[in-house]
Amino acid sequence: MKNRNPIKLIIFGFGKIGRELVKQILDAETQLEKESLLVSITGLADSQGLLVDPGGLTPQQIEAAFTQKQQSRSLHEMISALNRDRVSHYLDSNTILIDTTASQETLPVLKEAMAAEAGIVLANKFPLCQSWADVQDLFTYPRLKYEATVGAGLPVIAALKSLLASGDELDSIVGCLSGTLGYLCSRLEKGLAYSAAIQEACDLGFTEPDPRQDLSGMDVARKAIILSRTAGFPVELADIAVESLYPEALKTVSVSDFLQSVSQEDGRYTKLVKQASDKQKVPRYAAQITAEGIRVGLSMIEKTSPMGSLKGTDNYIALHTRRYSPSPLVISGPGAGNEVTAAGVFSDIIRLTKEMNGRR
Amino acid sequence: MKNRNPIKLIIFGFGKIGRELVKQILDAETQLEKESLLVSITGLADSQGLLVDPGGLTPQQIEAAFTQKQQSRSLHEMISALNRDRVSHYLDSNTILIDTTASQETLPVLKEAMAAEAGIVLANKFPLCQSWADVQDLFTYPRLKYEATVGAGLPVIAALKSLLASGDELDSIVGCLSGTLGYLCSRLEKGLAYSAAIQEACDLGFTEPDPRQDLSGMDVARKAIILSRTAGFPVELADIAVESLYPEALKTVSVSDFLQSVSQEDGRYTKLVKQASDKQKVPRYAAQITAEGIRVGLSMIEKTSPMGSLKGTDNYIALHTRRYSPSPLVISGPGAGNEVTAAGVFSDIIRLTKEMNGRR
Repeated sequence: MKNRNPIKLIIFGFGKIGRELVKQILDAETQLEKESLLVSITGLADSQGLLVDPGGLTPQQIEAAFTQKQQSRSLHEMISALNRDRVSHYLDSNTILIDTTASQETLPVLKEAMAAEAGIVLANKFPLCQSWADVQDLFTYPRLKYEATVGAGLPVIAALKSLLASGDELDSIVGCLSGTLGYLCSRLEKGLAYSAAIQEACDLGFTEPDPRQDLSGMDVARKAIILSRTAGFPVELADIAVESLYPEALKTVSVSDFLQSVSQEDGRYTKLVKQASDKQKVPRYAAQITAEGIRVGLSMIEKTSPMGSLKGTDNYIALHTRRYSPSPLVISGPGAGNEVTAAGVFSDIIRLTKEMNGRR
Repeated sequence: MKNRNPIKLIIFGFGKIGRELVKQILDAETQLEKESLLVSITGLADSQGLLVDPGGLTPQQIEAAFTQKQQSRSLHEMISALNRDRVSHYLDSNTILIDTTASQETLPVLKEAMAAEAGIVLANKFPLCQSWADVQDLFTYPRLKYEATVGAGLPVIAALKSLLASGDELDSIVGCLSGTLGYLCSRLEKGLAYSAAIQEACDLGFTEPDPRQDLSGMDVARKAIILSRTAGFPVELADIAVESLYPEALKTVSVSDFLQSVSQEDGRYTKLVKQASDKQKVPRYAAQITAEGIRVGLSMIEKTSPMGSLKGTDNYIALHTRRYSPSPLVISGPGAGNEVTAAGVFSDIIRLTKEMNGRR
């Protein structure tokens, strides 16, 4: 287990997650070396281009990329003559390609990584949610990890895969997979009006710039698809029943018009929450995944149940299996944030590095 | 990644866990082969001896061991001329030694396994709880896994190690680590008398034959030590403040005398639970682990908190870290039972096999 070459890391996306990830890797260098886990950042890519050196980027080069990025929001001026398409030239079985973008267009490069027997780590949900025919081989690729796509750093995918690998059988997954909608539900529970709760979540930076991206439930639906496909149920996004938390009529108006008009829904939600409260229940935006399909929407849950006791932006994932019955295996905690998301990606990199090392 | 030799598995302990593990491995064979994870059971050992074939035991041999075991509670008559000490002859870097016993005497063999660069998987807590000087090198050995020692199949150790490896820092671990004491607490919470709750737990088979082994809190203390040492806090068993749930005076009497006398404590617990209930709190037998030390004992917890909403025999482990703050990363669910314990061991075997395979 000595004298091996470092595993080369090529990182796609140099935004908040990508940059936090680079920091965590550089900070952990000494610790990793002690455990004979040698990694070397050899590439950084964003929509502007690719900074790459197969011998490993120096801390100075990475530092310069950080500075450049902070000034110009782009790696553009640092780019070698290479363009992004040519990242495939650098893919081999000692390389891990890491996708921290939110791009819908990285799948072709991931396929090239598979062909080159490279490792793949995803924080990006989109590649895993495309049509099953297109991504089936990705899900069975042994060198793919994607923990950070669901619950950020919470070890949900690893837990699910472990159960299945050891011969357990999944009955259902029930989860609260959105910190934003969790926050909204916990504020509704406290008696806040629907529109006020949305405004508050926006002000606190818990929503996307357009809060309808969260309220639509589509982000939850994507996470549910990833869980479902991991469990061996090859569902398509179009098949999922997703309950949107805003009216269809407000779909195309501007964000500011949306925020002004949305109070028209206040009465409806106040009534729903009151009816639930009378029965000792609280609102939760939940995903329910079984072999029969996926349902994503608002549910009223016993206040004293574990899911009912969930607070604020925390996520909650219950795995109901043949062995974990009637009590499920539950993982909960913060399911968003740059630090824990990057840490989820980093943990995948470490696990994959161990698997790509080993005896040889 | 082709044509590699199978990883050889030598299983110590052929009791409930060991036998369930063998079943799970045999059932998963086809699935494992599909993923190029070749394993072969080459040895079964219990206190009576060792059944071993470096070429792999045949299903017939294993079947015969099951049958033999069921008849005679021993592998004795099946043993080759080998005695157990000589298991070390079969240890090499393509072998995983699996300890499913509750023996305090396997540490020397584990050390031999380390010297031979073999993998090690433990369900047995004892080797990890011996004096820090004796086991420090075990905790840093890269081919050791011990998920099933805490929370059975719940992925607690993996989660803790992942957080630390990615550069997070542990503040504290708070947990309910005993299904038996969890059950006792949930019955006290419902108003059952202390002695009646103990009798019930005995009748349901939730306790050891001598329930004082559970009530002493020592099993929880051992799990707490394993968590603490994993987190980098090298505490000794003797340093831990452990609150026993039965009076010192009943330590040496017979089990039946104990069960008859224990009602003398009913008043004390009824009063404690009543006082807690008046403040919307419930009793939980909890471990608290920090860099400063470990406390194991009865705590009164907010009824509507996640730990307060814990039901029955479920375990609960909250990891409070720099990144997971103020909300911790929480894992909960059934933390005991043959099937989930064996599955925890099996998952470790699979992970270790992946790490021992890889490029070569």
